[in-house]
Formats: sequence, structure tokens, C-alpha cells
Amino acid sequence: MGRVTVRRPVLKIAADGSRSRPDTLAAEEPLEIRVNGAPLSVTMRTPGHDVELAHGFLLTEGVIHDKAQLSTARYCDSPGPDGRNTYNVLDILLAPGVQPPDASVTRNFYTTSSCGVCGKAALDSVRLSTRHSPADDPLTLDTDTLAGLPDRLRAAQRVFDTTGGLHAAGLFDADGEQLVVREDVGRHNAVDKALGWAVLADRVPLTGCVLMVSGRASFELVQKAAMAGVPALAAVSAPSSLAVDLAAEQGMTLIGFLRGRTMNVYTGTERIVTKDIA
Amino acid sequence: MGRVTVRRPVLKIAADGSRSRPDTLAAEEPLEIRVNGAPLSVTMRTPGHDVELAHGFLLTEGVIHDKAQLSTARYCDSPGPDGRNTYNVLDILLAPGVQPPDASVTRNFYTTSSCGVCGKAALDSVRLSTRHSPADDPLTLDTDTLAGLPDRLRAAQRVFDTTGGLHAAGLFDADGEQLVVREDVGRHNAVDKALGWAVLADRVPLTGCVLMVSGRASFELVQKAAMAGVPALAAVSAPSSLAVDLAAEQGMTLIGFLRGRTMNVYTGTERIVTKDIA
Repeated sequence: MGRVTVRRPVLKIAADGSRSRPDTLAAEEPLEIRVNGAPLSVTMRTPGHDVELAHGFLLTEGVIHDKAQLSTARYCDSPGPDGRNTYNVLDILLAPGVQPPDASVTRNFYTTSSCGVCGKAALDSVRLSTRHSPADDPLTLDTDTLAGLPDRLRAAQRVFDTTGGLHAAGLFDADGEQLVVREDVGRHNAVDKALGWAVLADRVPLTGCVLMVSGRASFELVQKAAMAGVPALAAVSAPSSLAVDLAAEQGMTLIGFLRGRTMNVYTGTERIVTKDIA
Repeated sequence: MGRVTVRRPVLKIAADGSRSRPDTLAAEEPLEIRVNGAPLSVTMRTPGHDVELAHGFLLTEGVIHDKAQLSTARYCDSPGPDGRNTYNVLDILLAPGVQPPDASVTRNFYTTSSCGVCGKAALDSVRLSTRHSPADDPLTLDTDTLAGLPDRLRAAQRVFDTTGGLHAAGLFDADGEQLVVREDVGRHNAVDKALGWAVLADRVPLTGCVLMVSGRASFELVQKAAMAGVPALAAVSAPSSLAVDLAAEQGMTLIGFLRGRTMNVYTGTERIVTKDIA
């Protein structure tokens, strides 16, 4: 797996004593994304799928909406202390006529790109900026399929198995078939990688799909899903208040605490088919 | 708890059927921090302890190092849709002579303020910017005390009990006595609130203390601990590679997977006293 994991010594302490041995850790390195040569953002990410990460980031920040708007993506020379390229600087060249991001994207990067100061302003700005209408998506999800998603996500997490330290995001269709699963030390990055895969596969808007994440559902993750036209977001843990508000505003289905056959459906309940309701 | 939690309807689905009822969610709202009137950052946070959050953020970004450098903190008028103040804009006035943050703090806010492009540059910039020497801290921690920290942190999480949706960060002394515990939807915010408490209590540098976090240990959390002079960071989950590298560089003790009497000590093992070693 190369730079996706690294080995470091560790002292393992347990009730029956302690021992030193090597341990496998999730790699975390900074990635600088440049657009048309100008630095846009630096994020701490797990190396790998960087081009997808950049596509997903630019999609969910509203800079691009399909892959044709991005001309090339290449690693710059960025030598580390040993003189070798770190592959930690990615330069994106936009297609002619595509407007590069303005300073506001840079300024609010990774907090929430388009949020205002009150929740209402944040919701408004997202509603204005997405090109898609998740509200109109006729997707239905049955609870059997949903119940299987956490295990499918977990099964696809190759790096988590060795490190226990990564977030995951996966796209699945209405039958629970996996489109893609990506892992990262950062929750946003895992989502950006999965959505960037969809950009490169010409699958945006992601109609009929559900985005499944390993952790909590924040405002920002709902925002990213909305920008990619995903009608449903499912999370293993709790949503925040503003995540629920935005999902309601966008007509999306938001599911939290999805653990086996129990789940909480916060918005878009009309898409859920349960045996005792159907 | 006011705006710390909000109520929303939820459809709860379980093997034995489904029912609609109100659910309690962790509140998430944007906080804009202004310094001397100029917008510095917007973060999605759980309302409450905002003044501590701002102090902790400015401390760990290297803008201030004690509370005397901050003259006033007050909420601006920022009316929401109902005309009432949202209390989501906090204006910080620095003391005379204190240099306001430059644009680079704004630009890289909440990724990693001072990171370069390769890991080495990131480590270098942190080493240069912290005023403290965690390496010289004579703290020792016995495994019995460490084993009790996750339960103490959890016991102090009032909001988690009702929402299941918050990160926590706590400061404890070498005997496991709690100095402060703070919660937030954002991991960095929880840490900034706890460290901001320390700024206001004149407890920085936090010699002889351990910072305990409910999730993973990222580079950025180690960086924040280093900026506050905390010699030890303990996490319930995994550290990343760069977190371990920075802790080693700073002479800090980094503990991961702290769950009851088992734990992994990645750096600074000389501070750990175990019965079978002692």
C-alpha cells in the first residue's frame, strides 16, 4: 500500500504486561491543491486517490460540475528533505473559460465554503449554489438494503483493518451495490475522494444513490452530497442540527445511527420502505 | 442547555417496527471570529464556550500566548431571520501592540495553520512557532491513572448522553484530576475550548497535564497541544503517522487506543510508569 500506511515502533501496554513492537499507522501528509498555478488549499490527507480528491473538492466547492471543466492534473516537483518528490503538491489546470475559484473559497476552505453567519444564510447559499435537485429524485431505499450498508462499507476498508484509524465514505445504489469506497484520515477527504471518483466516471449528479459515511453527519457532509446531487446520506453516528435542517431544505433523505437493522431517519422518510409499513 | 441541543422529529426504525418521535440533536451553527473588526475564520461549532473557543484558537494559531494579549471579546449584532441576535459573530480586540494574524492564518485555517508542503516542513514550522518545551516536562503518568481517563472524560460529557453526537476534549493532571472537559461537534473546537479555558485560567503552559480526546489523534491535535505546552496527549482511537512524528519531534508522550487497561504508547514512553516495569 506504499504511503497509505507507515510503520512506527509502539509500546503496547495491557493488563498482562507490556511489549515493544512495530505498529502500522494511517499515513497523514499535507496535500496542496493549486488551480492554474495559484495555491488554493492545503489539507492533511492520506496519500492516494489525490486526483479524485481534487475533483471532489472542486465539485463540492462549486468550481467545476463535470470532468470536462478540468483540463489536467499533475503533481508538481516538491522535493522533501531527501531530495525526492513528495507528491504532495497537485496542480490543476482548468479548461478554457472555466472561472477559477475566488478568494472566498480559499478563505473558508474546509470549514464551510459557502456558509454565512446564521444557519439560514448557510442554507440559502447552498440552495442557490447546487445545480441539482435531490428533492425530485424518485429513489426508494428498503430497510434490508440499508441495514447491510455499514458491513459493506467496513468490508471495503482495507486500510482500516491494519490501522484502525481511517474514516470511510462509500457510494451505493438502491440495491446496495457498491460503486466506490474511499478511506482517509479526514472525513471530508474520504467524501471528496468518493465524489471525485463519480466526477471522473461521469456519474454526477448521483441520482438513485446513497452516500454512506463511517462517522457522524455534519452540515458540511450534507452540503457536499447536495453539490453532487446525491439524494440520500446515511451515517453510522449522529447528525447535527444543521445537517438535518439542510437535508430537509434540499429534499434529501438523512439517516443516522445506522447500525444493523436499527436506524434513525431524520428527513425524506417517504423514500424509506419498511416491511411493517409497506 | 439552550442552543447546545435542539429537538427534531425522527422516524426510528428497529427490527420490531418503526415509530416517529422527537429526537435530541447536537446543535451545529457557524461561528465567525473577527479580530480587531476583520473576519478571521468561520467554523461550524456547537454554541457555548465561544469565548474559550476563540482564546484557544488564537493560542494554537500563535496569535496570542496569554490572556493579557486579548483586550475584549464581544458578540456583534448578527440578526437571524427572526430579527434576534444569533450570537454567531464574536469580535476579538487584541491588546495594544499585539500583532493581528496575517492572511496565512486565514488561508490555511483549520487545515493546519503553519504546515508546509512536506511533512518535514510542517514539523519544522511547529518547532519554530511554539514557545514551550514539552520535552523538558518531568511529568510521569501511571497506567492506572491513564486507564481511568476515558471513563472520566465520558462521565463529564453531558451533551453526548442526550445526542450521541459530540467529540470531547479534557485536561487532567498527573493524578487524573479533571481540570476541564469541553464538547463540540468539531474535534478541533472541543480542543480549542479546553485550551482556551486554560488561557483564561492562566494555566498555559499546561505543564504536568495530559490532554485526552475522544477520537483519533491527528497531526493538528498534537500541534495544538504543543502550542499550549501540554506534554502528553491521549486518544481513544488511532494516531496518524504525522501525529506520531510531531509528538516525537516535540518530546511529547502520545498514547492511542486508550481503552481501559490497554493502550499504545507511541512516543515519550519514559513518562509511563507501569507496575510490571516499575
